Amino acid sequence: MLWGGRFDKEINSVFLKFSSSIKFDIILLKYDLAVSKAHANMLGACGIISKNETSEIIKGLELIEERFYEGLWNPIDKNYEDIHSAVESYLTELIGEAAKKLHTARSRNDQVATGFRMWIKDAALRLSNLLLELQKTFLDLAGQHTRTIIPGYTHLQRAQPVSFAFHLLAYVEMFERDKTRLQNVFSQADVCPLGSGALAGTTLKIDRNMTARELGFSSVSANAMDSISDRDFVIDFLNSCTIGMMHLSRLSEELILWSSSEWNFIKIDDTLTTGSSLMPQKKNPDAAELIRGKFGRIQGSYVAVSSMMKGLPLSYNRDMQEDKEPAFDSFKTYSESLALMKDIFENIIINNERFIFEIEGDYMLATDIADWLVDHNIPFREAHNIVGKISRYAVENNTKLNDLTINELKDFCEVFDDSVLEILDINSSLDRKISFGAPNPRIVNEHIKSLKKSIEIESVNFNTKKNI
Amino acid sequence: MLWGGRFDKEINSVFLKFSSSIKFDIILLKYDLAVSKAHANMLGACGIISKNETSEIIKGLELIEERFYEGLWNPIDKNYEDIHSAVESYLTELIGEAAKKLHTARSRNDQVATGFRMWIKDAALRLSNLLLELQKTFLDLAGQHTRTIIPGYTHLQRAQPVSFAFHLLAYVEMFERDKTRLQNVFSQADVCPLGSGALAGTTLKIDRNMTARELGFSSVSANAMDSISDRDFVIDFLNSCTIGMMHLSRLSEELILWSSSEWNFIKIDDTLTTGSSLMPQKKNPDAAELIRGKFGRIQGSYVAVSSMMKGLPLSYNRDMQEDKEPAFDSFKTYSESLALMKDIFENIIINNERFIFEIEGDYMLATDIADWLVDHNIPFREAHNIVGKISRYAVENNTKLNDLTINELKDFCEVFDDSVLEILDINSSLDRKISFGAPNPRIVNEHIKSLKKSIEIESVNFNTKKNI
Amino acid sequence: MLWGGRFDKEINSVFLKFSSSIKFDIILLKYDLAVSKAHANMLGACGIISKNETSEIIKGLELIEERFYEGLWNPIDKNYEDIHSAVESYLTELIGEAAKKLHTARSRNDQVATGFRMWIKDAALRLSNLLLELQKTFLDLAGQHTRTIIPGYTHLQRAQPVSFAFHLLAYVEMFERDKTRLQNVFSQADVCPLGSGALAGTTLKIDRNMTARELGFSSVSANAMDSISDRDFVIDFLNSCTIGMMHLSRLSEELILWSSSEWNFIKIDDTLTTGSSLMPQKKNPDAAELIRGKFGRIQGSYVAVSSMMKGLPLSYNRDMQEDKEPAFDSFKTYSESLALMKDIFENIIINNERFIFEIEGDYMLATDIADWLVDHNIPFREAHNIVGKISRYAVENNTKLNDLTINELKDFCEVFDDSVLEILDINSSLDRKISFGAPNPRIVNEHIKSLKKSIEIESVNFNTKKNI
Amino acid sequence: MLWGGRFDKEINSVFLKFSSSIKFDIILLKYDLAVSKAHANMLGACGIISKNETSEIIKGLELIEERFYEGLWNPIDKNYEDIHSAVESYLTELIGEAAKKLHTARSRNDQVATGFRMWIKDAALRLSNLLLELQKTFLDLAGQHTRTIIPGYTHLQRAQPVSFAFHLLAYVEMFERDKTRLQNVFSQADVCPLGSGALAGTTLKIDRNMTARELGFSSVSANAMDSISDRDFVIDFLNSCTIGMMHLSRLSEELILWSSSEWNFIKIDDTLTTGSSLMPQKKNPDAAELIRGKFGRIQGSYVAVSSMMKGLPLSYNRDMQEDKEPAFDSFKTYSESLALMKDIFENIIINNERFIFEIEGDYMLATDIADWLVDHNIPFREAHNIVGKISRYAVENNTKLNDLTINELKDFCEVFDDSVLEILDINSSLDRKISFGAPNPRIVNEHIKSLKKSIEIESVNFNTKKNI
Repeated sequence: MLWGGRFDKEINSVFLKFSSSIKFDIILLKYDLAVSKAHANMLGACGIISKNETSEIIKGLELIEERFYEGLWNPIDKNYEDIHSAVESYLTELIGEAAKKLHTARSRNDQVATGFRMWIKDAALRLSNLLLELQKTFLDLAGQHTRTIIPGYTHLQRAQPVSFAFHLLAYVEMFERDKTRLQNVFSQADVCPLGSGALAGTTLKIDRNMTARELGFSSVSANAMDSISDRDFVIDFLNSCTIGMMHLSRLSEELILWSSSEWNFIKIDDTLTTGSSLMPQKKNPDAAELIRGKFGRIQGSYVAVSSMMKGLPLSYNRDMQEDKEPAFDSFKTYSESLALMKDIFENIIINNERFIFEIEGDYMLATDIADWLVDHNIPFREAHNIVGKISRYAVENNTKLNDLTINELKDFCEVFDDSVLEILDINSSLDRKISFGAPNPRIVNEHIKSLKKSIEIESVNFNTKKNI
Repeated sequence: MLWGGRFDKEINSVFLKFSSSIKFDIILLKYDLAVSKAHANMLGACGIISKNETSEIIKGLELIEERFYEGLWNPIDKNYEDIHSAVESYLTELIGEAAKKLHTARSRNDQVATGFRMWIKDAALRLSNLLLELQKTFLDLAGQHTRTIIPGYTHLQRAQPVSFAFHLLAYVEMFERDKTRLQNVFSQADVCPLGSGALAGTTLKIDRNMTARELGFSSVSANAMDSISDRDFVIDFLNSCTIGMMHLSRLSEELILWSSSEWNFIKIDDTLTTGSSLMPQKKNPDAAELIRGKFGRIQGSYVAVSSMMKGLPLSYNRDMQEDKEPAFDSFKTYSESLALMKDIFENIIINNERFIFEIEGDYMLATDIADWLVDHNIPFREAHNIVGKISRYAVENNTKLNDLTINELKDFCEVFDDSVLEILDINSSLDRKISFGAPNPRIVNEHIKSLKKSIEIESVNFNTKKNI
Repeated sequence: MLWGGRFDKEINSVFLKFSSSIKFDIILLKYDLAVSKAHANMLGACGIISKNETSEIIKGLELIEERFYEGLWNPIDKNYEDIHSAVESYLTELIGEAAKKLHTARSRNDQVATGFRMWIKDAALRLSNLLLELQKTFLDLAGQHTRTIIPGYTHLQRAQPVSFAFHLLAYVEMFERDKTRLQNVFSQADVCPLGSGALAGTTLKIDRNMTARELGFSSVSANAMDSISDRDFVIDFLNSCTIGMMHLSRLSEELILWSSSEWNFIKIDDTLTTGSSLMPQKKNPDAAELIRGKFGRIQGSYVAVSSMMKGLPLSYNRDMQEDKEPAFDSFKTYSESLALMKDIFENIIINNERFIFEIEGDYMLATDIADWLVDHNIPFREAHNIVGKISRYAVENNTKLNDLTINELKDFCEVFDDSVLEILDINSSLDRKISFGAPNPRIVNEHIKSLKKSIEIESVNFNTKKNI
Repeated sequence: MLWGGRFDKEINSVFLKFSSSIKFDIILLKYDLAVSKAHANMLGACGIISKNETSEIIKGLELIEERFYEGLWNPIDKNYEDIHSAVESYLTELIGEAAKKLHTARSRNDQVATGFRMWIKDAALRLSNLLLELQKTFLDLAGQHTRTIIPGYTHLQRAQPVSFAFHLLAYVEMFERDKTRLQNVFSQADVCPLGSGALAGTTLKIDRNMTARELGFSSVSANAMDSISDRDFVIDFLNSCTIGMMHLSRLSEELILWSSSEWNFIKIDDTLTTGSSLMPQKKNPDAAELIRGKFGRIQGSYVAVSSMMKGLPLSYNRDMQEDKEPAFDSFKTYSESLALMKDIFENIIINNERFIFEIEGDYMLATDIADWLVDHNIPFREAHNIVGKISRYAVENNTKLNDLTINELKDFCEVFDDSVLEILDINSSLDRKISFGAPNPRIVNEHIKSLKKSIEIESVNFNTKKNI
């Protein structure tokens, strides 16, 4: 315990187990060591501790890191309250007196907040990079499918023909927004609370800018009380994970539909599916199902942390210890899901021909006929009505649109002429869509090119913008 | 893998790690072994496997249990998909051929659902017992405080005097409902799905009633498809945990308020509080804060599982694997919180005298004066108005109600006479409340007595109603 | 205002608008009037008010009801805080002095809790009845489809053949649990808090059993403080709505899949679908989509109320006013969804023949072949492996199982003989499933019969068990 | 109906009521009219409709707006599906033929998304402005209280003395982040989807940049499918509202605590509190309670929309109609809460002297003594231990720190001398805190000054950056 002076009984063991965070905050070890090093350096530079003490502390902290990674020190074995106590306690064991000066002018409140913000910054960067990698996979695949015609759906009803590339690019756009959202989280976490003390700063002459700089923060926080009781960055992080997983849940739903016998549009590689313990013929899209299901887990974490913060008076309350597991678990789940999606799409087999026959002359071209009528001076609402009636006639006669004769069409509207038949050619249907953002292969190819370019620039930036 | 026949490539290792549930479903080992034993016995009794095979399987399963508890077999080390595969695989290692017959006429779908329902039944019983134990602690404490007067609050404003016993009994009532809710969960989980196969039963002549009986279920499920895709019992369990933790979060809030310098009503034992790493004088009610904070975690689990189930087509989907961790974690959190609360209240120090002086003649007695006026034929709404004016007069003159003279009172209403002064005696205020459910010490004592009696009966029943 | 005596400034108008609940709690008018009548009768019977006053009050309350339903009195127009103030204020206008005695020995705290519990009881009954009506529709439809073979899915992969009736019965089971859950909510709400006062009962000699009886409650609450700060029944109600809507969201997902071009299994009646403002050919399953989407709304209400209750100290806090809108909205949404589902299934067109051709000889029969092998003494795990290899062979050769010759089969396992070919007859596949709960038409018919019988009994009970 | 051509039966009336959105999307009227005007102008400029038709449409739309605001046209009365159908239908009534051309080259999918994004942009701006106004109130109040000493709390235990100004500034920092978050929402919504059609653009030569420019958007969306199925901006908006309300819930909790008899630190103005219908003396902080409670409502809306989006296949699904009510309701609740908070703090009465006596010589100064020891070369951990023991000694002897003699102090540590007594002067305690972000009045005053300056600049920007 770091706070025993006032107490004379042993802590209740159920309570210790209940309250100890070391089983999960060990993830912060790396950041805690960095925080302590920067703090020791600053204390030395400001003359609060001696140069000698500084260097002993630094060496001790480096030794701890070494021993931990070599498996020679396992803080979880001991009954520590948290990783911060564990480090200080082991440091005292290793270097003696000087260790007792490390906690000068700081509190666990600002120490934890600093380490956790560094973790969040790293997590945001790593997720961004996984999104960027997934975008590359999608763009490569899209490049091969700008003319692979599939039905575009609304209400899961076939609506208009699009290309598979176009469909994939919708997800690339979502991933783009996901990266922007994570960038905002990064910026928000990029404010250093170290030196805020328990809630009211300190009477000692410290240099907060120095520690912030050493730890890679862009600025220091302006109000100590807010600094140690702010967990907005965690909730914003969880919001980013929730929306990101929502996107993956939609993609998963599509993978599951496309893998069904009814759709029969893709095959997920055997290495990414499972069989059944009872039914020998099964090949199940489990990876997609699990990702879809795990959306709930991350959304639940958002609820957990936002509910935890509800109604807490200032400043720090122990409830806030519940901020970490949801963040750690969400990062793990979301990052693994992104990696798996990349594997799935890198090994996916597309049934290119699946819809060609069915789509030919399909009702999905009805909108284009309405546009043709508009081009021939029929007001849109009327054109819509005419083609609605044609569709119904075709359905009732169990025929496709391209089986209708010009005369049949003329019964619905006088202006029809042979040129309308070109509209019913599925192969040129994509090319006819000329508005910006449409599935026209030319537009789609340009979009792919421009996205690839911006992603390349980001990749370069990413490598230079790493956290500690 | 139990399903390899159809596949020839190795499973993707990221995917295996992502999808494996053995790290958490090992909790189900005990139940899975029981399920397999019951199933083997039934297969033997129905002549589907030989008596010999049955007894080999039973012996093998017993050996597994033994080795596991002796630490000689650790299924987590191996790359198993889940605890069910681990057991079957180890059984094959131990007893050879006969093991291959164990999965006859069952699927993991019905096997998992059965084991999980048994776990839920056990969890419901154990939580009920912890609630019952906590009630005992509260009733004992209440018995000592039927005349310890404290302010009763609404809107956190002092409203009317009550006793601490009365306040504690409000929680005993909540715990009573919590037990009923868990009993409903138990009943719902108490339907055996074993024999439902993957989703459509089996062509083999099995006896579902026999396995259900051996496993302690009250009935068997009536539709195989529903049996393996129903997770209502998990959501209902999580609802029980959420409401239960909501109650504990209210109690925690009160413990925190009561421990503050401002309230100064209780002292939580040193063994259940913590100090500060910076501020040497602190003694913090962390246990209560953590319990309050962990409400969010359990509520988040409710959201996780209900969102996961949203929109899933029948029947089993792998998403459903996400049903277990939230349930296991919620049980752990809730049961530990109940145990901690018991420790807290068994060692709590009550500042009996805290409010006596402040309450004497306080505005909190205003309602009783209004009732006195009603008894003297003033319509309640008018009485309320009169006493409102008296209160305001007292506030403005910075005086207490019992410092007002009869003449001052008469200025507000002619009917006042000396007998009203008895009303302002705080010591008799509880006795004057005579309606059923009021803080009258006589009524409260009767309530305690009747609750103790019913709890004793429950304790007996509990011991006979244990699960496997 | 009912509480003005102590105040002398006008209430802030933004605050009044923000805090007034009359725009939604007007729904409670009917219950509030009943509560007031019962209370007045009791006050009269106990001699707290005169017989004359009692009858004036009762008449006044009846007049209010009359005027409200005739549209002659609209409490929303006025600036009332809530429906309870509105009623008392109008009553005073109508009958004068006697009205001022109505609020004797009660508080809005117990008054509101009583009225709201009555509403919850009614809502639970009405939802139960809608579930029962939906079950009837499903059972009738199921009766026509015990031999309509469709694929049973797991992981949305075709698994084993089942009947459409069997599939429908899975939902009937869910609805059965939904009714039980609502019954538990009813029981929990069926405890009368009236007479608990603000939080501590009263000094007046009231008869709580009398009011409880008149209002149709089974018992009275035992602790006044808990009585007025308990909202468990609301959260349990919202849990019931959430799980119920989760079931409907699954059914909706299936309706949407079945309506797709790919599934082409059902047609939802035109009156229950919509078209597109742009694409003339569209017929969208909007009703199902909306129901699926509205799951989130109800789950969100669960979160809203449980979060609201988190950490509230005893007893009543104004936060609790936020309990009503989520309950009212969830009832409306859930009940309308149930009614719509009934309409959808009463007018649904089933494409009976959809799967017959595709299923014939399909891999879905693989499990049955494995069972055949088990019957011929091959251990299940081995049988599973053999059939897995056969399935893979068939897939690679692009052939169905019933196109394989006996000799081809014998290559995988010597024991195959001609009798295995019967297994590949899809028409007898359902009849071969003989375990309890299986899709065997005989078993399914018995299940339908027994459900119809128990539902009939319930219908009778329902009509006798109505609330006020 | 806009889509009737294909249908010949009347729509089911239950379904119409269930699915119609006009009761809430009427809020979008203003935006829908702007969208339609911009679209008509563009169709005219591109030669798709004539100049004449354009001007007829524009005039018609202006007439609709006029009649609506004059109360001459009420679209809710009619059985419209939504506000968009209502407008088109009424336009047709007003101007005839030309109206039928308005829907050329657009779909309700892109139309709704465009209008809703404009609403979100406006909502973000208006909330930002309310936050800014609230900040001003806080900064003014803080300016008066830089030397009003109050206990700073952690774990709701008194920790170190701070000033009320410092406490208020913690909230100003939160509001600052809330504005940044809303700014990010604004940027995300600021992408125009108009021209994306139903999901695949159009064959007509439209100019998407022109409409985007006219409607005040910064850019146009790049993929039509994503454009009409993206609701990220709604979830991000609800996340902003949730975190913002979480902040207000913390502030509310503090208002409630501060108003209690135990804290007795503030008085909320009578106009913003309520009384009791039973207890005449009560003055309840209802406004704060309601705001705290309404956090759940907004968090529930976040859950509602994120759950609704879960697992939806591309592109538009009718489920998405459930995106609006949660957004509208959250805006209303959050903006009213912000306005109320401003009223509360503008009329709050602070009990400046409340803590002075109690704080003098309090244990809260213990940290400063530890710092004094550090300044005198005692390692912090040892200093912490020494002061812990002193605190315990003082508690056991029921004395304050400033009542201890130097000799008593020396018993714990030799280095103590008279200069330590200055530390125990509460009046200088704030001035001794010299680190950046500490409650030192000089630092706090600088912080207030710099915040006031930046807020002034923002106010100017706000006025120029208005939406349509």
